[in-house]
Amino acid sequence: MKTKQPTRRAFIKTAGAGAAWFAVPRFLHASSSLNGNPSPNLIVIFCDDLGYGDLGVFGHPTIRTPHLDRMAHEGQKWTNFYAAASVCTPSRAAIMTGRLPIRSGMCSDQRRVLFPDSAGGLPSSEITIAEALKPKGYATACIGKWHLGHLPQFLPTNHGFDSYFGIPYSNDMDNTTKIGREAFWRPKTEYFNVPLMRNEEIIERPADQNTITKRYTEEAVKFIKENKEKPFFLYLAHNLPHVPLFTSDHFRNTSPRGLYGDVVEEIDWSVGRILETLKGESLDQNTMVVFTSDNGPWLTYDQHGGSAGLLREGKGCTFEGGMREPTIFRWPDHIKPGVVTDMGSTLDLLPTFCKLAGADAPEDRVIDGVDLRPALFGTGPGPRDLMFFYRGQQLYAVRKGEYKAHFTTELSYYKDNKKTYHDPPLLYHLGHDPSEKYDIAKDHPDVIADIRREVEKHEATLIPVEDQLAKRLVKINKQDG
Amino acid sequence: MKTKQPTRRAFIKTAGAGAAWFAVPRFLHASSSLNGNPSPNLIVIFCDDLGYGDLGVFGHPTIRTPHLDRMAHEGQKWTNFYAAASVCTPSRAAIMTGRLPIRSGMCSDQRRVLFPDSAGGLPSSEITIAEALKPKGYATACIGKWHLGHLPQFLPTNHGFDSYFGIPYSNDMDNTTKIGREAFWRPKTEYFNVPLMRNEEIIERPADQNTITKRYTEEAVKFIKENKEKPFFLYLAHNLPHVPLFTSDHFRNTSPRGLYGDVVEEIDWSVGRILETLKGESLDQNTMVVFTSDNGPWLTYDQHGGSAGLLREGKGCTFEGGMREPTIFRWPDHIKPGVVTDMGSTLDLLPTFCKLAGADAPEDRVIDGVDLRPALFGTGPGPRDLMFFYRGQQLYAVRKGEYKAHFTTELSYYKDNKKTYHDPPLLYHLGHDPSEKYDIAKDHPDVIADIRREVEKHEATLIPVEDQLAKRLVKINKQDG
Repeated sequence: MKTKQPTRRAFIKTAGAGAAWFAVPRFLHASSSLNGNPSPNLIVIFCDDLGYGDLGVFGHPTIRTPHLDRMAHEGQKWTNFYAAASVCTPSRAAIMTGRLPIRSGMCSDQRRVLFPDSAGGLPSSEITIAEALKPKGYATACIGKWHLGHLPQFLPTNHGFDSYFGIPYSNDMDNTTKIGREAFWRPKTEYFNVPLMRNEEIIERPADQNTITKRYTEEAVKFIKENKEKPFFLYLAHNLPHVPLFTSDHFRNTSPRGLYGDVVEEIDWSVGRILETLKGESLDQNTMVVFTSDNGPWLTYDQHGGSAGLLREGKGCTFEGGMREPTIFRWPDHIKPGVVTDMGSTLDLLPTFCKLAGADAPEDRVIDGVDLRPALFGTGPGPRDLMFFYRGQQLYAVRKGEYKAHFTTELSYYKDNKKTYHDPPLLYHLGHDPSEKYDIAKDHPDVIADIRREVEKHEATLIPVEDQLAKRLVKINKQDG
Repeated sequence: MKTKQPTRRAFIKTAGAGAAWFAVPRFLHASSSLNGNPSPNLIVIFCDDLGYGDLGVFGHPTIRTPHLDRMAHEGQKWTNFYAAASVCTPSRAAIMTGRLPIRSGMCSDQRRVLFPDSAGGLPSSEITIAEALKPKGYATACIGKWHLGHLPQFLPTNHGFDSYFGIPYSNDMDNTTKIGREAFWRPKTEYFNVPLMRNEEIIERPADQNTITKRYTEEAVKFIKENKEKPFFLYLAHNLPHVPLFTSDHFRNTSPRGLYGDVVEEIDWSVGRILETLKGESLDQNTMVVFTSDNGPWLTYDQHGGSAGLLREGKGCTFEGGMREPTIFRWPDHIKPGVVTDMGSTLDLLPTFCKLAGADAPEDRVIDGVDLRPALFGTGPGPRDLMFFYRGQQLYAVRKGEYKAHFTTELSYYKDNKKTYHDPPLLYHLGHDPSEKYDIAKDHPDVIADIRREVEKHEATLIPVEDQLAKRLVKINKQDG
């Protein structure tokens, strides 16, 4: 990752008592946060297919998210924060390892994600956040969707987590019948024969998805209470609001946004429960909570998919709507409240968490994440200046600073869409034009040349690895009777 | 206006300390606010062409609006609040009178707004908010853009305001030369020979637009300080961010959003100055501040226009992007903080203000506004259940509850766009589908029939009046030399 140019400005601002707006002085708690809290608790709340525009504080008019709105007000709302892929499995490989999925083999041009008949998963050679934090005595729990391999060797408990409770892949998999898309409009648990696992055992099948958000939340609260004396890392990865949409009785038919709103409002309730538990256990000042999502909204599911707000396109695409996520960091008395327009990525959590915990990040491999502490604590500009946008194993677009070049574009989720190659690439200034409307390539050949050099440098760091998503189990044809 | 159906839910929610989210009990200060503050100060901050998505708290990623974000956090963010027209003059006639512009003659199929050669204006028979509040001893000031007639008889000082300071129409008018649109990309004050007026006198021409937001703000602060002993009504109508975009030195080249961002961030600074002044003068608890805009973003000006966020289309249109506005109400200790998804409109300010001030609203004419106090104070559901969407003198669309029917659609600002008539009308559920993507007319003939009945009832209330926007001054051809 290149060092930021010194002309970049700090983009945190707050509404102070003073007359004029001002940039937050970037020196807050820089050392005390490290010395006073050598091992802060770390919580990642990760959604599935939540759109950039689906929270109140990110502009949705009818989804009510008071807890997330308050979390953003008390913490930092990041408006240029990216998942590292536009679909599930590669995005999750990236958040867990701090590495682009092209390095771990967790992306493919054959199949975009892992399926129940997949034989691959996150290689044991990869080091997850949980594994990196273990030497520092962290209790670690994975609750929710994993989707990095459901065979035993790939499960969370073999990747550094003390425990696992959740559905190991997407909630629309294991269809029991050849259900059509209409089954998604009024989904029933029995349509989707997904397993619910405790550690390496299936404890319920089909998982009762109506109560899944509630049960994940209860598990998370229990884990926090049981581990309050030691540092902990909690990875709470909701299966929702991925289709099919399920919600508990308490939330059904309550949101002005309909079923999708019910589901997101239940996740917001869950966030409120987590924050309330931290407060109740006096862990508020010693716990950093990060809220984000794995990729953009699944637009092809009409009103059952979310909204990317003003961003272009959604899930599956390398336009902004596919990979920019509504992201909030909260750590009272440590993170200065405000809006951060600096770039960040889920790739950055591993190196940042390692620094916060005093743990060693892997040094024998390329880590694509950067340490976000300067932006979090206000000690300097956000250190991320580059973002690579892959579709499968192909590099489609690159953002450097405010400029994003699209070398290839392809709309929507499905892989039979027509690819379009661009030479020169489409070029957008994302600061001025977050909706990627106005191609300015002809005015900036220098920017494009610079980005091409970054691509060359990046590609020189890639090493061939096995495609984990192409591997399949042998198909067993059972005979009836 | 029809009474709300009892099944409508209250849509205010807050992040309380309790475990679950909850609807705000609707009884807060309902009587104390009236008895304890018989004559609260009333401030309307009105922007020009600001898009629904242009504030941080309404989802913009690179426009930084910390003061408005905080105002929303401390007050109420209204996410379904409408201007009464999608262009300037009719929208302003509506906010001032509480009446649809079709009733005052302030909309036209000939010219969409007033121009410097216009001979018309808001008729003296209309009663403005300022006139309605005068009997209760209110000091009244209009600062900024008026655009309800620039001939003396139409100016603010002849419509109930004690004083006026501002540019009387749009800041792109009075072009000195036949400038092309490129002059908008790097605008200079001398390109636009608009007058700056003090009461009925022109004091500067061309108005120095670079300092106009700053000067409007200083005037507003001065007015507040000078009138703190009596109740006052301040109507602060910024000329910006309408094109051409101007900003003061302090803000130029500072926003990640570019010039448009600089301009909106200066308006945010201005809001901060007003709120700081109220606090400094101990007027905080006795002043209601409303922030909103006249219509949606002018999308045909590319990056010099704003963003409607997830809403469809912009200025000039009867789709949501043309008329739904980012709206915030703030009145500490009186208005319960939260997000309000109930409908509201600029039409409602006059009746609401009259109730708050104990003043009489006009009773000899149709008032299209409703008293918003139940929603503001939490004593009941928002009373607005209908909204009419006119383009010029033609009724194009109607919203009833969550359903909006488009009988006619026409894109963009310019009047030579092709009209499309729809029978049955396009029908959208705005709660589930705020982006107006999924026409559900065929599933809801009953809803359409109900809306048609509302149209009939509405049209029966209309009385022919003179078209004020079609009236022109005699053109005087001056000879050279």
